[in-house]
Amino acid sequence: MTRNQASNPHFVEDIKSSFAKQSIMSLIGAELGAVEPGVVEIKLPYRADLGQQDGYLHAGIVTTIADSAAGYAAYSLMPAGSAVLSVEFKVNLLRPARGKFFVARAEVIKPGRTLTVVRSDVLSLEGQHKDLVATMLATMICVRKQNDQHE
Amino acid sequence: MTRNQASNPHFVEDIKSSFAKQSIMSLIGAELGAVEPGVVEIKLPYRADLGQQDGYLHAGIVTTIADSAAGYAAYSLMPAGSAVLSVEFKVNLLRPARGKFFVARAEVIKPGRTLTVVRSDVLSLEGQHKDLVATMLATMICVRKQNDQHE
Amino acid sequence: MTRNQASNPHFVEDIKSSFAKQSIMSLIGAELGAVEPGVVEIKLPYRADLGQQDGYLHAGIVTTIADSAAGYAAYSLMPAGSAVLSVEFKVNLLRPARGKFFVARAEVIKPGRTLTVVRSDVLSLEGQHKDLVATMLATMICVRKQNDQHE
Amino acid sequence: MTRNQASNPHFVEDIKSSFAKQSIMSLIGAELGAVEPGVVEIKLPYRADLGQQDGYLHAGIVTTIADSAAGYAAYSLMPAGSAVLSVEFKVNLLRPARGKFFVARAEVIKPGRTLTVVRSDVLSLEGQHKDLVATMLATMICVRKQNDQHE
Repeated sequence: MTRNQASNPHFVEDIKSSFAKQSIMSLIGAELGAVEPGVVEIKLPYRADLGQQDGYLHAGIVTTIADSAAGYAAYSLMPAGSAVLSVEFKVNLLRPARGKFFVARAEVIKPGRTLTVVRSDVLSLEGQHKDLVATMLATMICVRKQNDQHE
Repeated sequence: MTRNQASNPHFVEDIKSSFAKQSIMSLIGAELGAVEPGVVEIKLPYRADLGQQDGYLHAGIVTTIADSAAGYAAYSLMPAGSAVLSVEFKVNLLRPARGKFFVARAEVIKPGRTLTVVRSDVLSLEGQHKDLVATMLATMICVRKQNDQHE
Repeated sequence: MTRNQASNPHFVEDIKSSFAKQSIMSLIGAELGAVEPGVVEIKLPYRADLGQQDGYLHAGIVTTIADSAAGYAAYSLMPAGSAVLSVEFKVNLLRPARGKFFVARAEVIKPGRTLTVVRSDVLSLEGQHKDLVATMLATMICVRKQNDQHE
Repeated sequence: MTRNQASNPHFVEDIKSSFAKQSIMSLIGAELGAVEPGVVEIKLPYRADLGQQDGYLHAGIVTTIADSAAGYAAYSLMPAGSAVLSVEFKVNLLRPARGKFFVARAEVIKPGRTLTVVRSDVLSLEGQHKDLVATMLATMICVRKQNDQHE
């Protein structure tokens, strides 16, 4: 994988500011972790009210943190003044999402002027134990400010 | 699409009971809608705290209701005493998810003894306006009670 | 699904001409079927040399006709002078691809200025027997003539 | 990624023998490359008759080698006497597939008794130049000999 370079000098602040506007993140208790060019992490402590029928983290919440991490990883490489939208993603749920703590770690595979392809892995952590619970492959689109639709 | 038949005579009660255990559904305010053999709907009123940075419903929440609807659509055709887990899904976000109300409607495309393939569409509704905001293609697995892992 | 309208008055000729340049189509023996605004079919007679280890049509060949049908369905709604490229697709293989004859039928779900989302189903036919063997959900991009990359 | 171990002592011979039965591989000129526990490569020299409308390798042929490599990577970890079938895959086409030579390299992400998840990358090579042209995320199923359907 080639080293990625950010063209927007304020990408860290821009991502923090956008993340703060994602109200769903505060509802579920997610926090921004590492933010580097092409790589973004989101952390989520387990809470019982985020569960599916067996008490594991619901696949949609696994997806919520994987998708935001993927979007911001793409956004970190976009020009200043852009916006990012998810075009599509695929998620494989590899193991039941149990654990005290979850981290989504997204990495850009292929940046592009319009489309950026990102991989986003979700790990569960409990004590020394670390498991890959899901992997996402996502396509993100860079939207210039004048139009707000991903078409 | 061939008409599907439920072999579990209590599938409606079983789905209601499982849905009630998905604590994430009450956190986001989602409710079970239609439940028929091979078809399940989940309804979600918009709330500002479910939003992404522009205030639209976050793609992960769109996925949350699409996935649960897909899982229960598959489950409705499984034998009594089974459990269902999501193997994987792909979601295309077709339009910004704005609207007062959202419905995920899932329909089984191909039932199977082990794997069931489901399509799940998410619509936004506001007044007379109705838009397809996302479509999911998902694979679900039927788990017999003795083992709890999708492997 | 809303009725689609073609803005390119020569879309049928343009698709036929592009299809004729897809040399893989003549290698495998595929032919263009119906071509309508937003809907394209590709037909493929079974041949033993297209098989996987059990003699069924290889999933990659199922994908080949599904992808070309999807690309041309998207292309049928693009402005004259555009080119189309596949961004990504997901395919569920629903049954072993056995049969004398296969048809990929693609239909645009959501047209767009840049991205178009298409569903493409592959059916096997043998006598009166007709089976859905695969379903694809694909994202296509419209490329203006000046740049040839989907980025 | 944890080191994978093959339980079938004859997995290399079994893969070679199955590959030899995939008649599509000889039609397109593909050859088996490296075969290790959890990792399989397939090599494909470019040929003009494998092309799409611009002469690049057709996305369906990119998928054909990615899928077979993924299937055999999964198969390498399955018990002797198993068969493998593709459940589904998603492919992102990252760049136009131009080059003299292509290699699909598949690696198991998560082995399982029933389902195995595999990543499969397709590289183009020309002189010193090496490019990632596509990445696949696939789900494979292990089929015991008594039933031949992936359901």
